[in-house]
Amino acid sequence: VNAVLDAARLAHVGVVVDGRPLVIPMVFCRDGDRLVLHGSVASRLLRTLAGGADVCVTVTLVDGLVLARSAFHHSVNYRSVVVMGVAQRIEGEQARRSALDALVEHLVPGRTADVRSASRVELSQTTLIEVPISEASAKVRTGGPIDDADDLALPVWAGVVPLAEVAGPPVADHLLSADVPVPSYLEAASHQAGAGGAPATEN
Amino acid sequence: VNAVLDAARLAHVGVVVDGRPLVIPMVFCRDGDRLVLHGSVASRLLRTLAGGADVCVTVTLVDGLVLARSAFHHSVNYRSVVVMGVAQRIEGEQARRSALDALVEHLVPGRTADVRSASRVELSQTTLIEVPISEASAKVRTGGPIDDADDLALPVWAGVVPLAEVAGPPVADHLLSADVPVPSYLEAASHQAGAGGAPATEN
Repeated sequence: VNAVLDAARLAHVGVVVDGRPLVIPMVFCRDGDRLVLHGSVASRLLRTLAGGADVCVTVTLVDGLVLARSAFHHSVNYRSVVVMGVAQRIEGEQARRSALDALVEHLVPGRTADVRSASRVELSQTTLIEVPISEASAKVRTGGPIDDADDLALPVWAGVVPLAEVAGPPVADHLLSADVPVPSYLEAASHQAGAGGAPATEN
Repeated sequence: VNAVLDAARLAHVGVVVDGRPLVIPMVFCRDGDRLVLHGSVASRLLRTLAGGADVCVTVTLVDGLVLARSAFHHSVNYRSVVVMGVAQRIEGEQARRSALDALVEHLVPGRTADVRSASRVELSQTTLIEVPISEASAKVRTGGPIDDADDLALPVWAGVVPLAEVAGPPVADHLLSADVPVPSYLEAASHQAGAGGAPATEN
């Protein structure tokens, strides 16, 4: 569960609003045995979460397309985690600041030491939410197609097209002074982004 | 909305089960003015959907990490679509076969003409679901960081790390006969997978 969560940057967060499901993509991080989410205090979703809503946080990494000899056995290689729980607002300036830092640090390891940290006004505009990782399940599919024995002799190409998220060269902001170099930790970010192609477990 | 849906292969599908949200990743495709989902007739989620459940289908493509000079203004470039509606079981052998073909064709354009199509038994093991694209919203963030004026002079690198999903060289199944070549449409799949890096709209 933790390995999948740590390899992803985006979660799909589901809540029930007026009896109907709502699923919104959010940046997240794992911080010990909890997930951390954040957003604007003005957001309806964040207000729902802060009110202690039941929440389902799902994280998925796609590792490849699985091409079988029959339409029916086509599949996708992936790693996925579903965390179900009750959202809770993170309280206290120090705890909230630390949660926000964890989010930035997960997005780009090494970044928090470099940037201006959040002001009190900025913190007051941010709702920080935690979800305990207590009810969680992971699902992983790896490997090639599983065709029916009768189909193996068909003259149809079968196998896997690997997919991975890769980072391109950093593009500097047009307002950035030319004497500020690209930081070394962006190298690490490129490596992390490319790590999606090598899952380790069999379905 | 359609451009984002067509560029993605995976959706996060949210339903309400026993009053709680459940979000599951699923392969999907857009087929005209509906989304098509599928799964095993044995799946609890598929039975919930087939029963006419309220559903939220969310599709997200991540295009880059946005690094600002302050922790607070960090962000992600992305394209996302949220479709809300009522799921409906697709009935009739011809309609179900055509929906399954649309799914395979969306996963790998050109593939359906090549493979053994689904048998009646296989079709009977598959639940096919449609969701009308009537209540849908798209959200897109592109471009560089938006920093506070006071932060612009800080000696902190700022800009965007582009992210894109790319396809690696196809890996043949170990049972594949050596005289079956890699099909030409897998070239097209590689191009499609790499297209995520160039969003066109400003947030």
